[in-house]
Amino acid sequence: MRQTFDETTDPSFGPKHAPLIRHAMAAQGLDGFVIPHEDEYQNEYLPSANDRLAWATGFTGSAGAAVILKDKAAVFVDGRYTLQVRDQVDSELFEIRDLVEGGVPAYLGEVAQSGWTIGYDARLHSPDALERLSAAATRAGAALKPVEVNPLDEAWGAARPAQPTAAVAPHPLEFAGEASSAKRARIGAALAEAKVGAAIITSPASIAWLFNIRGGDVIRSPLPLAQAILNADGTARLFLDPAKVTADLPAWLGNEVRLEGPDDFEAALANLNGQRVSIDPGQSAAWYFESLEAAGAQAVRAVDPCALPRACKNAVEVEGARRAHVRDGAALTRFLHWVATEAQETLPDEVEIVGRLESFREATGALKDLSFDTIAGAASNGAIVHYRPTHRLNRHVEPGSLLLVDSGAQYLDGTTDVTRTLAIGEQSAEMRERFTLVLKGNLALARVRFPAGTPGSALDALARVALWSAGFDYDHGTGHGVGSYLGVHEGPHRIAKVPNSVPLMAGMIVSNEPGYYKQGAYGIRIENLQVVTEAASIPGGERAMLGFETLTLAPIDRRLVVAAMLTDEERAQLDTYHARVLREIGPKLPADVAAWLGRACAPI
Amino acid sequence: MRQTFDETTDPSFGPKHAPLIRHAMAAQGLDGFVIPHEDEYQNEYLPSANDRLAWATGFTGSAGAAVILKDKAAVFVDGRYTLQVRDQVDSELFEIRDLVEGGVPAYLGEVAQSGWTIGYDARLHSPDALERLSAAATRAGAALKPVEVNPLDEAWGAARPAQPTAAVAPHPLEFAGEASSAKRARIGAALAEAKVGAAIITSPASIAWLFNIRGGDVIRSPLPLAQAILNADGTARLFLDPAKVTADLPAWLGNEVRLEGPDDFEAALANLNGQRVSIDPGQSAAWYFESLEAAGAQAVRAVDPCALPRACKNAVEVEGARRAHVRDGAALTRFLHWVATEAQETLPDEVEIVGRLESFREATGALKDLSFDTIAGAASNGAIVHYRPTHRLNRHVEPGSLLLVDSGAQYLDGTTDVTRTLAIGEQSAEMRERFTLVLKGNLALARVRFPAGTPGSALDALARVALWSAGFDYDHGTGHGVGSYLGVHEGPHRIAKVPNSVPLMAGMIVSNEPGYYKQGAYGIRIENLQVVTEAASIPGGERAMLGFETLTLAPIDRRLVVAAMLTDEERAQLDTYHARVLREIGPKLPADVAAWLGRACAPI
Repeated sequence: MRQTFDETTDPSFGPKHAPLIRHAMAAQGLDGFVIPHEDEYQNEYLPSANDRLAWATGFTGSAGAAVILKDKAAVFVDGRYTLQVRDQVDSELFEIRDLVEGGVPAYLGEVAQSGWTIGYDARLHSPDALERLSAAATRAGAALKPVEVNPLDEAWGAARPAQPTAAVAPHPLEFAGEASSAKRARIGAALAEAKVGAAIITSPASIAWLFNIRGGDVIRSPLPLAQAILNADGTARLFLDPAKVTADLPAWLGNEVRLEGPDDFEAALANLNGQRVSIDPGQSAAWYFESLEAAGAQAVRAVDPCALPRACKNAVEVEGARRAHVRDGAALTRFLHWVATEAQETLPDEVEIVGRLESFREATGALKDLSFDTIAGAASNGAIVHYRPTHRLNRHVEPGSLLLVDSGAQYLDGTTDVTRTLAIGEQSAEMRERFTLVLKGNLALARVRFPAGTPGSALDALARVALWSAGFDYDHGTGHGVGSYLGVHEGPHRIAKVPNSVPLMAGMIVSNEPGYYKQGAYGIRIENLQVVTEAASIPGGERAMLGFETLTLAPIDRRLVVAAMLTDEERAQLDTYHARVLREIGPKLPADVAAWLGRACAPI
Repeated sequence: MRQTFDETTDPSFGPKHAPLIRHAMAAQGLDGFVIPHEDEYQNEYLPSANDRLAWATGFTGSAGAAVILKDKAAVFVDGRYTLQVRDQVDSELFEIRDLVEGGVPAYLGEVAQSGWTIGYDARLHSPDALERLSAAATRAGAALKPVEVNPLDEAWGAARPAQPTAAVAPHPLEFAGEASSAKRARIGAALAEAKVGAAIITSPASIAWLFNIRGGDVIRSPLPLAQAILNADGTARLFLDPAKVTADLPAWLGNEVRLEGPDDFEAALANLNGQRVSIDPGQSAAWYFESLEAAGAQAVRAVDPCALPRACKNAVEVEGARRAHVRDGAALTRFLHWVATEAQETLPDEVEIVGRLESFREATGALKDLSFDTIAGAASNGAIVHYRPTHRLNRHVEPGSLLLVDSGAQYLDGTTDVTRTLAIGEQSAEMRERFTLVLKGNLALARVRFPAGTPGSALDALARVALWSAGFDYDHGTGHGVGSYLGVHEGPHRIAKVPNSVPLMAGMIVSNEPGYYKQGAYGIRIENLQVVTEAASIPGGERAMLGFETLTLAPIDRRLVVAAMLTDEERAQLDTYHARVLREIGPKLPADVAAWLGRACAPI
């Protein structure tokens, strides 16, 4: 079993650890200390050695912060985690505050006292975040001070896990589709064009992509934690713990890439003096900017130059994604068959459901990892958008309820992410109507054609209008980018309400996942991955349009569809999709499952 | 006749006037001078005294710029005006450049020589625009220098028209719906909340709205050119040419508003020293910022505090808009009847068409002005988005063609803006199909429900998907804000591709105007105004949604609709709209027109 169901923290973490942190703070003369969720790599997943917020407070959500002052403390979470935080954190010790409304700056403005010194670790905060903190502290008459040594790390001491040293291996050209030398040459040329001598790359996903390497320092994404400097001439320096270097890595990197240890990085920054050096303030912490300036280099704020090229998959990567989705779709279909047949009788619990799905994926022989912990939400658990089953929360499916399963896998040729909502027993008319509204949104976003230059935020409403017109909505984005055997959440593109200026471009993979959640009752989400394509020219049309090709191949539960609510166009679209699923997945299945799939893919 | 069809400039303007400008430049030691389209009020329409770009170059478009150097010159226009500029400007004298791609800064970077001094008038440039100019000049080694006296104004001399002095009169409460004292109190409170002592208001529309006054200094909008200072305590100073002050104005303004002459304004700015003063860099020229700083005040960059309250019409203004649209719809319907009957035989030209429409509006007895020059585009002229008929371009309608008529009116109770595309004779299948695609977009945007917080850019695609799916698009926004007896183009909200963060809020009036243009052949646009409403609660729904109420009442040409391309929902929506038009407009019409309207509004 790859997924575990234990809880790694509990509310005693705060009372146990905050006094240790305060002790270390006092030794440094600090009246307060800010603890962000982010670590040195500003990555979605943290190695346990860097999950400082969890150790200090017990809170394990994917975003948040805490402030520990000498006489009080607070933890900050967004709307997704308001229930979870009360479960995990001692609210006697920590005031629970909203991360978005006011957040840490407002708190500091309220409680910091004139003359106080508030510490922060410059390796963990983006320059923009730091500026807001600093302004708030100044208004309160307090001073914000970077620490030399993180007092939390001191307090954690010997109990802190070691930094991960997972092997870093080549990612072969048959999957990457473009040699690192070619990537470095074209991105180096773009740097030269921008009159920049070098770029600091700190995003683990960008490093993996640029050098065609994969690691394993964090769960669920094959990422190497490392740093790199890419020069405008296409040469680079890669700073990687020697313990991670596999035998064939140096030859794979070639002689244009100098492999060095992490301890060499600071000196390498100092060597950039006099140069214009590009660095991404959304991706790299304030420490990098300060170090560059201290070195006499000019830090040029610019988006990570790998972000957009990485997002636009090449033909080999797109072909890999198609293969990965056929494989994954076959495994998922075996699981859906099990839910539709045996599980209707045995009424398993969420932990068993997660295990079954995992074993079908394991049986492909190609599974490298899950792409995230499977969300299997039975009945009311399905309404908790960021739910993850644990032994404590685990519940059985019940007749007349819905089961929401959001899962994905990492394969060498691609990363998957798919959600299906499944009927257990007979469903109410209400559930079927709302499922159909969600389906209409998913279909609308799947079939849209759009001109070059259209950002995802311009398409978000298409997935919502059917729900809106019935008085419903969902409080999450509609689509996120997905990597190629990389992170399952990847920028810079996104389909969401928040305005965004990054256009959708050919080769970008993006999820299409509208939903509906009835608190305390059930959750519905339908998620497919789709890749942006140059749409075949439209007969009679005047302008080239982009479109989407759906990658995910798995039946949508017909028992939940109210056919009368679909237009002719929607009905034809769903039938065409199901026919394709049957054609591509059917031959990969055992006879009984294939027969079932035939029925599951019958025209509406 | 209010609308004229003469051209006010010709390509000889440049050769006649540029030498005079160069002479004045030389006297000030300038090697170049930048001439923006904008005047001191950064308003859409300029009084002829301030249309410096037209006088210098001949170009009369609504956006643009020119640079006159001692040895060369260029004029800058955007994609809308590439044809018009070649018609109006001597291209021997002026190089024609793109306003958006590179624009003036790129040109200065290319041609300005080291040591040169380039002049600009700080009253005409926004601070942001100036910063870009300055950076470009610096890169070229040239200096950008503010002039004391505008050399173009010197060159224009006695030939320059006088500044307008149209009477400024009260705008009664029965139309405004909220007393100026109440407006000033609530906006003053918002300033106090933002710890700002006063706001500089330079937008003529904001001044008209804040003080409940209307003027006539520019055509098509009842605007007073003036400046104001609003204090956080709700008192204000209004700087207005005494020649504009009508007898009842001082009493109307009351004793919380000090009425002063324009010459007092600079001294009043100096009096703000030591204060934090809010001013809108998108609305007020650099001169204001420099004057505030010179006075020792702190210029706080903030959106004009009247912009959002002005956009959200109160109940009296919305009720006025409804009345204005019934009146305007009846006049327009008489015109549409004329086009559908008599004009099918007489085949009038565009000038006659404009005059007919104007005379129907005049006949209401309530017309204060057009809200913009009527666009009557016959056949290929309809494909020119910013077309305006002139005697030279004027053409007759022809059987088998389309006539696009975009027009609007200013009434005391509201401003209108409506486009109808009309069949002359029999239409081709292609025209009817493309008309129906445009109609589908208009209907989709009219019926959408959406949650609070949704900006217009999130809805723009709804008006385009039908066109996109057929391989078409249009190169203009889908909707602009509209004032209440104020400008027909009003911010801060907008429905367009460009990402925008201003949510649509109840009371905002916005146009819904998708289109299709076949160059050299015909143009199609369907435009209604609609007001954002708190949608009646949706049965079974969970969340409050906003929606739109269509204000514009006039039939959509049924002869151009391909009924088979509409869904049942779209058909019902069109029929319901037509039934409402007949119910509300029918009783206001002569019997023959009413009978025709009955046929024009019959179910599809």
